[in-house]
Order: sequence, then C-alpha cells, then structure tokens
Amino acid sequence: MDVFESVVKRLEVKSYLDKPVPMNIVREILEAGRLSPSAMNLQPWRFIVVKDKETLKKIGALSPSGPYIADAAFAIAIVAEPESRWYQIDTARAAQNMMLVAWNRGVGSRWVGSIKRDEVKKLLAIPAEMHLVTVLPFGYPKKPRRGTKKNRKPLSEIAHLERYGQIFFH
Amino acid sequence: MDVFESVVKRLEVKSYLDKPVPMNIVREILEAGRLSPSAMNLQPWRFIVVKDKETLKKIGALSPSGPYIADAAFAIAIVAEPESRWYQIDTARAAQNMMLVAWNRGVGSRWVGSIKRDEVKKLLAIPAEMHLVTVLPFGYPKKPRRGTKKNRKPLSEIAHLERYGQIFFH
Repeated sequence: MDVFESVVKRLEVKSYLDKPVPMNIVREILEAGRLSPSAMNLQPWRFIVVKDKETLKKIGALSPSGPYIADAAFAIAIVAEPESRWYQIDTARAAQNMMLVAWNRGVGSRWVGSIKRDEVKKLLAIPAEMHLVTVLPFGYPKKPRRGTKKNRKPLSEIAHLERYGQIFFH
Repeated sequence: MDVFESVVKRLEVKSYLDKPVPMNIVREILEAGRLSPSAMNLQPWRFIVVKDKETLKKIGALSPSGPYIADAAFAIAIVAEPESRWYQIDTARAAQNMMLVAWNRGVGSRWVGSIKRDEVKKLLAIPAEMHLVTVLPFGYPKKPRRGTKKNRKPLSEIAHLERYGQIFFH
C-alpha cells in the first residue's frame, strides 16, 4: 500500500477478529520499530511481544482505556530506558512506524494511554526503573472500514504560513 | 512506495538541494499530519509552514542541533496546545506520518531536538503558552542514499517474548 494512502486511511482499531497474525508479519512490525530513528540514535526501546491469551486478558483488565487488549491477536509493550531524555518522542515515532506497517498488512492497532503501569510492569517482569510507555494491541479488524472519512479539524484551523495565526492558503 | 519499504529505507536527512518542493507535496505532508490520530481525538497541534529563506536562516541559527534548517526548502514548526497532556506523543506520531509521506515523494527531513524555543517562538509569533515541539526541515536530499543499511541494535537485543528478558526467537 502507498504510504500516503496508508496514512490517510489508517484508523485506530479496537475490535479484533479471533484470528492469529502470522509470525512473519509480527516480525515485520518489530523491524519497523527496530529501524526507526531516535535522538542520537540511542534506540532507547525494548519491545515485548505478548501472545499468551491469559496475559492479554490480564493486561486488558489493567488498562482502563484499553480493555480490548484482551481480544488482541497479540500486543507489543513498549518499554524505554530510564536515562533517555527523549523517550516519549522516540517511542511514539517507532510506534507509529509499527502501526503503519501493520496496517499495510491489514492488521489494526490502537494506542492505549491509560494503563495501570506498575501492575503491568510486574506482570511482564519489566524492571521497576524502566518506563512502560504503552501497550499496543494488534489484530485483524472485526469491522473493516473503507474510505477516508475522519473527524478532523480542517487545514484552515491548524495550518499557518510563515507566522502563527496567518492562514495557510492552499 | 510501499509502507514497509519506506519505513525500512527512510533516513534522517540534513543536507538539501537548493530546489523548491511543489506546494501539492507540502499540502500532502500537512494532510498526513492533519489526519493523524491523537489522544481523545483532541488534535492538539498547529503546523506552521515556513518557506521564507530569511526566516529559515534565523531558525537555523537558533537551533544548536539543526543549523541545516537554514538550507531546507521549507520547514514545519509543530506547536501544541498547552492544556494537552499527551502532546509529545500525539505530535511525534503526526510528525512521523508527515516525514514518511514526504519520503514517499522523495523529500527528506529530520527531527531537530535542540532549539532555542523561546526565541523561535518570538520569531514565529507563537503565543508564549503554546509548546514548540520541534521544527522539521524538509528538502530534496543532496546525496540520495540507497539500501537499507542502518546502524541499529539487532532484534535479539531489543525484542522480548511474553516477558521482559525472554529473547524473541524469530
């Protein structure tokens, strides 16, 4: 799929078919994260692939904004090194790369923000000093949607030219 | 260009040809940002397109890690609303979308982290309470590089299976 088409059409997906994602696709998604850019090329990330259904259920129960993690084909917990100053930006860029590459293979995903991080860290044996940035659930969408209809502000509200407040004419 | 190919091959680019980027491509890049996902769909961003050469030179001089902004065909200053709790993650995902869509059209870019933000905000008339996240320079690469050689840690160092510390066998 073309990059622009993928970025334009990709939706955050939170309901998944009960259908496994082949490991070559999981690997491609990990490669997308691994090859991402990061500040000073520090690559401050670790990616924990969770496939075990019981663990996914437990993470879902510990995620107020992501109970649907329980139904994912797999999830990737993104963990960052404590000494990294820019880990939020670096891992968000890596996550976006992973989610777009997944979409390219028909696999949906969604950023989950609200997670009981201390408990999920214990569950996944993540050292206390590491940051648990997010847990991204992945799976084939239950309701495939088409088209580019997205509820977004128009460019005239968010794009400026040369100076803040000067409308970008397009 | 295929999404996986683009993610695998895209490089951060800091030297640019003295060649303008057509406005339809600038617009496509803005669309990629506009259509990005964000926490609670708040879209807490503003994108300021800077094309004026004098302004680009001034921003370059105010960016310890990005003097090459001076040579960009254009730049996009990413600004975030002060009340957003998740603006770093939201804007980093939008930036990654924009940078991939640019790459898809042969346009390079690079994340610039070290910027004298207060001074650049004054230069671009950005209200004091807004966050200036980054200024992304864009332009056609001076030295087009091919291939996928990237200096990155192997998957065996950064990918785990089910629990932190368990090597991901692939």
